[in-house]
Amino acid sequence: MQEFDLINRYFKSAGAQRDDVELGIGDDCALLSPPPGKLLAVSTDTLISGVHFPVNTSPEDIGYKSLAVNLSDLAAMGAQPAWVSLAISLPSADEDWVKRFMQGFSSLAQEYGVALVGGDTTRGALSITVSITGFVDSNTNFTRSNACEGDAICVTGTLGDAAAGLRLILDNDPRQSHYQALLHQLNRPQPQLPASQLLQPYRIAAIDLSDGLLADLGHICERSGCGAVIELDSLPVSQTLREYYADDMHWKYLVNAGDDYQLCFCCDDETLQLIQPVFKQQAIQLTRIGVIRSQPGIRCLQAGREQAIDYTSGYNHFKHEN
Amino acid sequence: MQEFDLINRYFKSAGAQRDDVELGIGDDCALLSPPPGKLLAVSTDTLISGVHFPVNTSPEDIGYKSLAVNLSDLAAMGAQPAWVSLAISLPSADEDWVKRFMQGFSSLAQEYGVALVGGDTTRGALSITVSITGFVDSNTNFTRSNACEGDAICVTGTLGDAAAGLRLILDNDPRQSHYQALLHQLNRPQPQLPASQLLQPYRIAAIDLSDGLLADLGHICERSGCGAVIELDSLPVSQTLREYYADDMHWKYLVNAGDDYQLCFCCDDETLQLIQPVFKQQAIQLTRIGVIRSQPGIRCLQAGREQAIDYTSGYNHFKHEN
Repeated sequence: MQEFDLINRYFKSAGAQRDDVELGIGDDCALLSPPPGKLLAVSTDTLISGVHFPVNTSPEDIGYKSLAVNLSDLAAMGAQPAWVSLAISLPSADEDWVKRFMQGFSSLAQEYGVALVGGDTTRGALSITVSITGFVDSNTNFTRSNACEGDAICVTGTLGDAAAGLRLILDNDPRQSHYQALLHQLNRPQPQLPASQLLQPYRIAAIDLSDGLLADLGHICERSGCGAVIELDSLPVSQTLREYYADDMHWKYLVNAGDDYQLCFCCDDETLQLIQPVFKQQAIQLTRIGVIRSQPGIRCLQAGREQAIDYTSGYNHFKHEN
Repeated sequence: MQEFDLINRYFKSAGAQRDDVELGIGDDCALLSPPPGKLLAVSTDTLISGVHFPVNTSPEDIGYKSLAVNLSDLAAMGAQPAWVSLAISLPSADEDWVKRFMQGFSSLAQEYGVALVGGDTTRGALSITVSITGFVDSNTNFTRSNACEGDAICVTGTLGDAAAGLRLILDNDPRQSHYQALLHQLNRPQPQLPASQLLQPYRIAAIDLSDGLLADLGHICERSGCGAVIELDSLPVSQTLREYYADDMHWKYLVNAGDDYQLCFCCDDETLQLIQPVFKQQAIQLTRIGVIRSQPGIRCLQAGREQAIDYTSGYNHFKHEN
């Protein structure tokens, strides 16, 4: 089998079927029919082996995560996912690897109704670039510049689980089998699209937590021209993470933890009161962790006392996400 | 200067300004307003150092070519370019390299009115992935499956120049300074968007010549369920290429030559007669090089005699383009 055919085969059958794909993979371009009256939300992310995932990550997990991090960007914009392009660089045309990668990628694409509309495969160091397009209603406004003084700062889910999962792997920790939940959070982050949908009617400032709470909330503050105060004791922590860290538990493991892909957003108190029961009904964990202040910078409080911030980002690479 | 800021700075000022970009680089997603009644044409291409361009190619030329090959895909679909996303992997955050890369990229983006709406930069082996979106009128139909028996096969420009430019570099040929035109064709291919615009009113089968005439015309034949006959003596050759090859000139250097990024298309004789004077008026070289036949396979004729095809593609990597 020619390498061209190998790739072609696994790409063509991947993802969801959509009526708005007039022409799919196999020509110079895909032809797509955008819905009238909506805006397109577009995001591109590259994942590099050894930088964005440990080198021994399974192909299925890499495939899943490549799409999940892009879906997470759409969630942070209030967008409904629609179409995705996939560019893979691989050291060799390994049929088994591609098949397993596409299983992980395609299962998530089908779950969210995303069509794979194009791509490119090249020989090179392992790297995946995904470009995703979603639809945004004209009344949806989730931009990072929307935060105002007095806004509540909220996060979905819990923080720090994925970073602990990464640490389990990097430390070659023998307890990996016991802490599958942490590894799952690292390798299979759930894009917060359901939460994003519940927030659709409101004007909020939102971002997905890819680089860590302090770094990502910092982007909101920078764009909104404001600062923030975080109540450290309010940060949501999973039971598994408490068990994992035990006596060593420290808030620095939560505020700098990357790869959670939870949603962080700022909204006024009225909005918060409206959404809290809806989130509860949908069983989506929602925690108010702080407040937006006009004074620039992020301050972390514990029992009313300010704590010095210890920046220790889990990932050390240069990155500009959009 | 932080690496983040470095990249951010050069991305934000790049490309054309467009009114349909509601929100540009700097949030989780770009927000774009598609024109009503048109289809979107989307294409993604990855360029890898040492595979898609020689390792010593200048950053300006890499930047230019990364966009040019994607614009070429839009030309082959009859699309008007609009928005582009750019993902760069770089071994280190080299400010001078990024600045020069963006000069080449941005100059071409501005020439064709393309806005840079997103991107990602990561640390890794040098590789560039560009995802481009253009607009197609609903009456434009350039798909590869449109070829019919009796159609004329046409190409724009001349063939083989870029491949000879690559050979000059790989051979470390001392005549490089004399053959600047061939190097220019390799490093600065002109996307055939003007020719594509002239063809808008017609139903044609089109493809851009990235992998060589036989390979690319083969895609049209495969998708259209037909074959082709090429008249080797009709293939358009530049004066410079004739001089470069001199007594060694052979048609195999033309039919397998990659990287020309000329347009190859198939149309009926009536269409050909209508477009020939228009192309002449616009000074765009157009050559009829053969005819579509129902019998599968591509046959090459010289003075009425069939020649055995000698496949020697200039590029040896696995690739699926869309």
